[in-house]
Order: sequence, then C-alpha cells, then structure tokens
Amino acid sequence: MNSQTPLILIMMGSDSDYDVMKETGNVLRLFGVEHAMLITSAHKTPVETVEYIRKYEDEGVEVFICGAGMAAHLAGVTASYTLMPVIGVPLDSTSSTLGGVDALLSTLQMPGGIPVATMAIGKAGAKNAAIFAVQILAKKYPHLQSRLKEYRDKLRNDLVSKQQGKLEA
Amino acid sequence: MNSQTPLILIMMGSDSDYDVMKETGNVLRLFGVEHAMLITSAHKTPVETVEYIRKYEDEGVEVFICGAGMAAHLAGVTASYTLMPVIGVPLDSTSSTLGGVDALLSTLQMPGGIPVATMAIGKAGAKNAAIFAVQILAKKYPHLQSRLKEYRDKLRNDLVSKQQGKLEA
Amino acid sequence: MNSQTPLILIMMGSDSDYDVMKETGNVLRLFGVEHAMLITSAHKTPVETVEYIRKYEDEGVEVFICGAGMAAHLAGVTASYTLMPVIGVPLDSTSSTLGGVDALLSTLQMPGGIPVATMAIGKAGAKNAAIFAVQILAKKYPHLQSRLKEYRDKLRNDLVSKQQGKLEA
Amino acid sequence: MNSQTPLILIMMGSDSDYDVMKETGNVLRLFGVEHAMLITSAHKTPVETVEYIRKYEDEGVEVFICGAGMAAHLAGVTASYTLMPVIGVPLDSTSSTLGGVDALLSTLQMPGGIPVATMAIGKAGAKNAAIFAVQILAKKYPHLQSRLKEYRDKLRNDLVSKQQGKLEA
Amino acid sequence: MNSQTPLILIMMGSDSDYDVMKETGNVLRLFGVEHAMLITSAHKTPVETVEYIRKYEDEGVEVFICGAGMAAHLAGVTASYTLMPVIGVPLDSTSSTLGGVDALLSTLQMPGGIPVATMAIGKAGAKNAAIFAVQILAKKYPHLQSRLKEYRDKLRNDLVSKQQGKLEA
Amino acid sequence: MNSQTPLILIMMGSDSDYDVMKETGNVLRLFGVEHAMLITSAHKTPVETVEYIRKYEDEGVEVFICGAGMAAHLAGVTASYTLMPVIGVPLDSTSSTLGGVDALLSTLQMPGGIPVATMAIGKAGAKNAAIFAVQILAKKYPHLQSRLKEYRDKLRNDLVSKQQGKLEA
Amino acid sequence: MNSQTPLILIMMGSDSDYDVMKETGNVLRLFGVEHAMLITSAHKTPVETVEYIRKYEDEGVEVFICGAGMAAHLAGVTASYTLMPVIGVPLDSTSSTLGGVDALLSTLQMPGGIPVATMAIGKAGAKNAAIFAVQILAKKYPHLQSRLKEYRDKLRNDLVSKQQGKLEA
Amino acid sequence: MNSQTPLILIMMGSDSDYDVMKETGNVLRLFGVEHAMLITSAHKTPVETVEYIRKYEDEGVEVFICGAGMAAHLAGVTASYTLMPVIGVPLDSTSSTLGGVDALLSTLQMPGGIPVATMAIGKAGAKNAAIFAVQILAKKYPHLQSRLKEYRDKLRNDLVSKQQGKLEA
Repeated sequence: MNSQTPLILIMMGSDSDYDVMKETGNVLRLFGVEHAMLITSAHKTPVETVEYIRKYEDEGVEVFICGAGMAAHLAGVTASYTLMPVIGVPLDSTSSTLGGVDALLSTLQMPGGIPVATMAIGKAGAKNAAIFAVQILAKKYPHLQSRLKEYRDKLRNDLVSKQQGKLEA
Repeated sequence: MNSQTPLILIMMGSDSDYDVMKETGNVLRLFGVEHAMLITSAHKTPVETVEYIRKYEDEGVEVFICGAGMAAHLAGVTASYTLMPVIGVPLDSTSSTLGGVDALLSTLQMPGGIPVATMAIGKAGAKNAAIFAVQILAKKYPHLQSRLKEYRDKLRNDLVSKQQGKLEA
Repeated sequence: MNSQTPLILIMMGSDSDYDVMKETGNVLRLFGVEHAMLITSAHKTPVETVEYIRKYEDEGVEVFICGAGMAAHLAGVTASYTLMPVIGVPLDSTSSTLGGVDALLSTLQMPGGIPVATMAIGKAGAKNAAIFAVQILAKKYPHLQSRLKEYRDKLRNDLVSKQQGKLEA
Repeated sequence: MNSQTPLILIMMGSDSDYDVMKETGNVLRLFGVEHAMLITSAHKTPVETVEYIRKYEDEGVEVFICGAGMAAHLAGVTASYTLMPVIGVPLDSTSSTLGGVDALLSTLQMPGGIPVATMAIGKAGAKNAAIFAVQILAKKYPHLQSRLKEYRDKLRNDLVSKQQGKLEA
Repeated sequence: MNSQTPLILIMMGSDSDYDVMKETGNVLRLFGVEHAMLITSAHKTPVETVEYIRKYEDEGVEVFICGAGMAAHLAGVTASYTLMPVIGVPLDSTSSTLGGVDALLSTLQMPGGIPVATMAIGKAGAKNAAIFAVQILAKKYPHLQSRLKEYRDKLRNDLVSKQQGKLEA
Repeated sequence: MNSQTPLILIMMGSDSDYDVMKETGNVLRLFGVEHAMLITSAHKTPVETVEYIRKYEDEGVEVFICGAGMAAHLAGVTASYTLMPVIGVPLDSTSSTLGGVDALLSTLQMPGGIPVATMAIGKAGAKNAAIFAVQILAKKYPHLQSRLKEYRDKLRNDLVSKQQGKLEA
Repeated sequence: MNSQTPLILIMMGSDSDYDVMKETGNVLRLFGVEHAMLITSAHKTPVETVEYIRKYEDEGVEVFICGAGMAAHLAGVTASYTLMPVIGVPLDSTSSTLGGVDALLSTLQMPGGIPVATMAIGKAGAKNAAIFAVQILAKKYPHLQSRLKEYRDKLRNDLVSKQQGKLEA
Repeated sequence: MNSQTPLILIMMGSDSDYDVMKETGNVLRLFGVEHAMLITSAHKTPVETVEYIRKYEDEGVEVFICGAGMAAHLAGVTASYTLMPVIGVPLDSTSSTLGGVDALLSTLQMPGGIPVATMAIGKAGAKNAAIFAVQILAKKYPHLQSRLKEYRDKLRNDLVSKQQGKLEA
C-alpha cells in the first residue's frame, strides 16, 4: 500500500456536504488509509465527475465513497461507471426539508445489477462508510484486519467506561 | 416541423416501464408531434444514455421526457447533459414496494441550477408529460396552441357528458 | 421581447412566501427576462386570481410560476384556466409542520390532462422554476439559449473552484 | 324542507369516484335529505365548477360535500367560492399509488380563514360526510336530530348483535 | 342567542395546547359567539371528559371543538358521546416528534358512522375550526351569515393590500 | 387460576377485526389461559365499552388486549378506565388505505401517565399480545413461566428444522 | 421486595439517551421500585449486553426496559434472550434525522413469537415504560396497585387544577 | 478459492424470505462463488445465530449477507459479532403492511462504528447484495474482476437489445 496513491476516493456533491463527509476522512486517517476528497456534482459537473471516476480508478482507487443530498445521484452515477465497490452516504442537505429521506431513497433504490452500498443518513453513515471501506480493503491488505479489531475494541471500551460513570442503583 | 425529425425524445429506464410510458407517445400522436422512444438506463447503459442525449439534441430534439422508477436518475442525468427542457415522470416500478415515492423524490429534488419538471407518479404523469411538452413546443410552433385548445375542450366535454349520465336527484 | 411586457408571471399564495419566491425573480433578472410578481391566493382571493391569470395571459405572459404552501392549489388552479405552461413550486410554509410534503403532493398529483411542472420543495425549486421557464422561452427567443449556456458554465466553474480549495490528500 | 330543492350538493372530481361517493347519497337517502350529485372537476371544468357552486347556492344548497383524489382541490375551490360549510372526502384514486395521502393533504391543509371539514379517506369518509352534513342541517331542521339519534342507536345495536354471535369463552 | 350560554365548547387535552387553541377563542370572539374553553383529557380525565360533554350539551352547546396532540382521542371520544357536530384540530404536541401526523390520523380516521370534521394541523386548523363552527351555527342564527361575509371580505382585502406593497416589475 | 374466570379480555373494534384477533385467542388457548373475547367499539358503543371494562375488571380480568384499526382509540380508552395493563394491537383495517399506520400512531402515541403497550401491526402483533399477556400473568401464576419456556423452545426448534430442509451449498 | 435487588433493569444504547431515559428512573423512584440503569449497546457491546441480560435475570430482574434510537435493536435483542417481559422505548436520537420513526419501527415490528411492548417515542414513552413496568410488577407485589391508583389520581387532579386556572367564558 | 469452503454466508430470518433471497444465491452461482445459505433468526434463534456467525467466520467466510423483514435485526446483529463486511437486504415481509420500510430503517440506521451496507428493498437488493459481495471478494481474488466486467457487459447488452425491439418513431 504505497502512501502516495489514494486507495479510496471520497466524493461529495456540494461544499456544504463537507462538514459531514470530513468524518469519513477522519476515520480513514485513523486507519492510515490513503484517500482523496473531491467536491463534484452528478448534475452540475457531470462530465468532470465521470472523468474523476475514470482517472482515480486508473490511478488505483479501490473503493468509492459518495455523499450527496436531495436527489442524490452521485453514488448511482459512480456505480454505473466503475466496477469498484461504491458506498453511498445519504445526506440531510440544508436545501432540503425532508430529513435526508430524499437522498436515502435516491441512493438506496438502485436497480438489480448496479449495487450501491448505502449507509445511514448523515454523520453516522459518513463514519461507517470509512469503516466499511476498510473492511473491503482488508481483503487485500491484511494488516488492516488487526486495525479493525483495535477500532472495534476501542468502541466497546469507550462505551463500557461511559457505562461505569452513570450506573445507578 | 419536418415529420422526419423527432422533436421530443421519450426515454425510459427499463422495458417494464413501457406500459406506462407509451401513454406519452399516444398523447403526442394525438397532437401530431414527432417523437422517438428509447429504452436506456442511467445505470446500466450510462455511456449510451449520454450518447443518445447528445445525438438526439444534435438532430433537433427540443424536449426530453424521462420515465423511470426506483432511484430514478434518468431525468437528472439528462438534465445535467443538455440545456433543453427535461420532463421527469416518476414510475411505480414493479421492482419497488414504495408506490413510486422513491422515484418521485429521486426525480424532483434536483439541486438549484439543474431543473427537472416533474409530473405526477405513473400514467397521469406520463400523459401530462406529453401535454406539457406540447405547451413548450407551442412557443415555437404556434399551430400547436390551437390543438391544445381542442384537447382541453374535449377533456371538458368528456367530463360534462359523463356528468349528464350520472346526475342524481 | 419588449422589455415593458412581462413574459413570466410569478404568483405566490401568501406574503410569507416572498422570501423564497424572490429567488425566482432574482434568477430571471440574471437572464434579463421581464416578469411580474403577485401575491394572490387560490383560496382567499379566488376571483382575483382568475382575473389575474386572464389579464396577464392577454397581455402576453407566456409562462406562469406558482409558489404555495400547505394545500397548495395555486398552480393547479392556474393550469386549469390557461393553456400556457404552469410551473409549481411547493413551499415549506411556516404554518405547516409537514416540511412541504403537503404542498408537494397538492401541486404534483394533477390528473391526466392538466399538467403542472413541479420543482423541488423550497428555494432550490424557486430557483429552478426560473431556469426552466427560461428553457421554455428559449424556444421562441433563441438568444436565451446562449444565456442558459453561460449560466450552466458558471454553475460548473463555481463548483470546480470550490473543489480546488478543499482537495485533501 | 321542500322535497324539490336539494339541501346538499355532492360533487366529485371524476366518474371513477362515483363508487365511493354514492355512499354519501345512500346515507342521505336514509335520512330523507334532498341532495344532488354532480361530476365536476376543479381542473378539467373549472368554470363549470364555479357556476355549479353559485347556481346551487342560489337555489338553496346549505352544505357542499366534495370527494376527490390525487391533488384534490375540489373542496378547497368550493370553500373559496361559498360561505356555506364545505365537507371534503379524500379519495384513494385508482390513478394514484399513494393510498389517498395526496388527496388527504390537498383537502385538509387549508390556510387559516377558509375551512374545509375533512373526513377519513375513502368509504368511511364518504359515509361520515353525509352524517356530518345532517348534523349541520339539524341546527335548522330540528326533526333531523331525532333521526340522528335513531341512526346512532342502530349503529350501536348492530354492533351489539354482532358481538353476541362471536363471544368466546 | 343568549350571551350567558356558550354555544361552542372548546376542549383541549393539555394546558400546553392552549397557545394554539386560544386562536379558536380569538376568532369566535370576533364573531361574537359565546363559547367556553376547557382543559380535559380523554386519557387522564376520561370520566370528567364525558361529564363535561353531557353537561355542556344539556346547557345548550351546539358545536364541540377538540384540539389534541399525539394519540389524539379527544375529538373521537366527544363524537362518540354526542350527536352534536364535533370539529377536531390535530396539534403538533411538544411531546411528539412527528409534526402532528400522529394527531392527524388519530383524529381523522374515524370509522363510518361517527364523524369528526378534521381541520389542518396546528394554528391554521385552530382558526378554521372557529370559522367552520360559525358556518354551522349560521344555519340557526342567520345574522352570523353576514358576519361570515364580512370576515371573508376582510381576508380578501388584507391579501389584496399586501399584494399592492410587494408588486415587482 | 379458576378456569371459569377469564384472566384476559380481548376486545376488538369491529367484527371484521376478528380474523386477525382470533390469533390472540389461539395462542392463549395453547397456554391454557382463560380469556374472553368481545366486539365493542370506543366510538359506536362507548358506554358499553366502559361498562365491559369495569365489569370484567371486577370479575378478575388482569390484562386487557385491544385490537382496532383506523383511529384506533380502543386501547387508549381502556387504559384510561383501568389500572390493569393494556396491550394494543394496531390493525390494518380493510376500511383504511394506510396499512395500519393510522392505527399504530393512534395506539402508540399515548401521553405520559397512561401507557398502552403496543405490538406490531396485524397478525404478528395479535400473536405477540397473547405471549406478552402470559409474560405478565406469569408474575402471579408461576407455572406459566415453564410454558413460556416450552413455547420459546418450540419456536426455536421449528425454525431450526425449517433450516435443515433448505440448507444449500 | 428486597430493596437491594433491582426488579427492573433499564438499558439504553448510548450515553446520549440518558437525558430521556432518566425519566424512567424518576418515575420508578416515585413508586419505590428498585431498579438499575445500564448503558449497553446491542451493536457496540453485544457480548456484554447478553451477559448483562443473563446476570440481571439471574439476580431477579423481572422486567427489562430498553431505550434506543436509530436501528434500535436493544429491546429486540433483550427479548430474544429472556422470557421476562421487555418494554421498548424508541428514542429520537440526535444522530438521526427521522424523528424516531427509525427507532419506532425497529422496536415495534417484532416477528410473531418474540414480543416487545413498545411505548411512545421519547419522554412520554420513557415515563410510560416505568408505569407499565409497575403495572406488571403489581401482579406479584399487590401493594403497588394502590400506588398506581394514587399516581393516576394525582395525574387527574393535576389536570383538573390546571383546568381551573384557564377556564374562559 | 477452494470449492469446498463457502466464501459468503447468506442468512435470512424466516423460510418465507427464501423466495427473495435465493436470488442472491443464483447470482453468486453465476459468478462461481462458493456460498452457504441459512435460515436463522436474530430473535427466535439468537444463540444459534451467533454460533453460526462464529463458525462460518472461523471456516473462512469473508462476507455475510443478511436478508430480513419487519424489525430486521439480523444484519445488525451479525455486524456486531464480526469484523467481516456485512451486507443487509431489507425485505417486504408478508407479515408486514409497511412495504419493507420497517426492514429498511432497521437495517440501515446503524450507529457510527458498526456499518451495515444496505441494499434496495426486495429482489433488486437481493441480487445486488451478491454483486456487491463479489466486488468485495475481487480485492482478494482478482479473477472475479473480469467476471464482474462480463456481468456488467451482459447487463448493458440485454438492455440494448430490448431497446432495439421497442424503438418507435
């Protein structure tokens, strides 16, 4: 795993999505996984989006993560141009009043043949997209498996210690 | 309006959408408007879809009508590649259990800058897409305005005559 | 295109809708398209609403844009009285708790025969209504086609430049 | 209460609504209340609809009942043209896939100032519209109050007798 | 119409509903209609609620208006104990996260035989409940009909004057 | 546990609910728990419903199970008149088009102070209401605890044996 | 009822749920019922969760109360490992945008055979879970029945006194 | 890739889910990927479910696919016990009236830290789960990458040929 080449490309449809999608980057950094982050829109920059997908795939990206709100087509468009796994994060866009349900259904309900692995709406999903991407990469880069174990252990320990402070009888 | 060149391109994402989208063709025939009908998927044939959009636009198509179900990206993709008006018809796909709500939100909730004119879910929408397309074309082909008037008059008269037969006192 | 005559009439059901619907006016100004803006309610001023529709149609309005919240009938009423294209913008009214879903379904679900071209809920929809109206007018006023191209180019360039500042490796 | 003049006008937006809305007529006949039934659409026959409202109001109609599906504007339009009470019945139109939720929100969510009394979706609502209309008329025609009592008693007795046959120990 | 006797009883399920339901009282005062206002819960004070319904009905109440949130049973319970017309106002309770949809369905979906006239969720509905109650009472107290006309005229004029100030060209 | 006295009263709002609610009776019979079953409506027979609740409570009923559709108030009404535990089963009434969501929210969203234990919509809920009632009764009648264990074991074994027949490699 | 042994175990999936679930504890304290409170997650600490369920059941816990948000599996997991009654409280998690509907359906829609008694979303549900648990325990500890009566009486009296202060004529 | 050892374990919560989930097996067979299929319930056989997860993980399963309806906890439970990637398929259970929305939210809305990759509801999702699992395995077994290409090509060609037969001018 050469540290120069991104293994994961995080795309988002708007700069207002950055606040949520940076969580994905934060988690990937924890795992020491090279990644790049792009703002590109399936609707405003369709040609550039396809070019990015092809360019990064050529350079060795192995998983795409796409965060978008409203009629969130970014993950679906990406999945239609690559055979690499695509993970979609539906976002609760500030321009929408539907709590991310629009983005969820636009990301999830892909036709048979072109899968998008959809995560929970918003920050929980942005975080989980990173972890799931690491689970995929661990098939090829086995050292990641032990980092996943450490991460899961920390998750458990954090909860257990929170538990200690609040126990009530 | 040369009868060889289609002015309207009707696209649908799957052959199972044909039963509903043929309504669009039927109404356009009533108005004598040349059109073509294509099965092409934003997800299964993304390259071909873009080629079709460009080819038909070059040949003089002036309005695109896109019917799709589930994560219905076809209208959005089309709108992102053309400056011609795009009309979206959300379909209640037989592969979905959500009554077309997934297709509705995927078609309607376009970001500011890239409009898709969305019609009602299903057959009513497929019919109205045709009429709305004629309303657009009438700006350039004024003879259509009188046909719109005839169509509206017939609509009214049909309802009035149905009314006669059922009046109850 | 005489600059004295409005080509587009923007109607809204309440003065509280102005904050969103002024976006439609702002975009039309960018395109240099003459328009008028009216507060008129399908329910509180039904007679005046019909009079406005007829008066403005007589004076040459070529597209109607209607923004309304709750049981949003304004677009449907307008579509029932004119053969001109009607664009509906469902609004998330401050008097409603339903996030604009009520307005969306009241605007969108028109019966076969009387189309309303529905845009996204809220500001994105208000903006897109203007652009879509220009796409319609461009059929008759071809100089608008190049302005649409400029607008789309700017949209793309704005996103691309936002992208530059945030790229992360 | 002259038996020639209808006290209640039942309007419906389409002949396909008749199967449900005839329930309203059936219940009114039980109560011996004169009524008329009309098929008229807020969208397909807007001028005729307004004429009907005015004509029947002039002739002495005291309550309007409106059944409609999809973007159900009929009750709202009626309420905007009359000061008589308007009862709305949202219908699950065969042209819609939304179970009548579209009609419900289009009927119910009237702005402050123009009330529509909304009943349950479908047959239960069609029946209750009749009973509620009788409750209104009973203010002026006191003999209806005792018929309401008989009706309620029968409702109770029918349920009680059904109960007898099924009791299980 | 003796000014001592309330013609309308406004009931609400919780004191936190008062902020919305006082709108009903405000509108009735405009019309000069005697009314009483009660906090009583179908669930917390069921016996008292039934006693209130019977007591006020005996004293001459002619219309019941019930505002409640969550599992809003107050209107249904009232309708089951009286033959007087019952108007339900679904409220967006501060204890609920569902925007009043729970209250709406609990109020609206009454079985055939026991109608509740349901108004819009929240303040618009609280206001309209008052107006609709006056429309009912006007059957018996004809002087209210002219007040309804004045109210409707004012509504129209207010909107027309708002319109003047904002017209844009 | 005297076999003459019912420990559980199953109430349902309509005879059309019997097909689902008989599941509750079937499961209780498996456990050998005495129960009675009643058709009684919160809306059509409110007085009788309250009388039943009081009568059966006096006779020793220890758990109430209420199945109802639409504006399902039966469980809430029962909970408001008794301190015994009340279990609610929301039903997908044939008179409703909302899949039981109306009944679910009407049953579930009880205000703080008056609990109703709500089960899944329909048959699964009807079955589980019986099991949950037995779990409650087992506090007082300890022999039921071992029957619950047998029931759970059978559930597991049934699934395990289904699993055997379908395993695929 | 030995004051050392908890009769009720309150579990919650995250420390951010504590603000709502402490209501359950507060109400149980009012009733003088011993309880323990635990933060444990069906997903982050699945092994510990099962151990807690078994340990507390061995120590004599008679009712489990589980509060969780999002994909709220805690109540279902608990119900699958114990034959004691399990009460679920769906929470409107700060990490979710769906108002607790996700948690509601994840808690409520249990398959036939494994019941979870579901309460209203949020604080009302947290409070009612405690009361319902007391109703269950009262089968075994009859002194709780009179405390339930006192609690219900107080509830009624509080409402009645609120009513006094606001009555309007 | 030894043909004796399953690389993928398909689990489903009920034998009634088999009709949909066999699609997953069918697609995996097309790709020549060894897999096993199990009926096991997070709620009815929780202990066995955990044993299966551990046993199959020990034997070398690299991806888990879980299909379940209603309160679909199977995928979440699996994800909580393994670090292998878990794919969830929400099913429209015949025991539910909610079109799979309950299963969708129960599968998708996982808390940050424990991802489940969620597919579309029903058959499309079952199919896509298989393809996505192959995309994951292809990281380790590169020969699968060319099979994915063949599959995608066939998908495109099938659509193109359907297109030929229906083109209309």
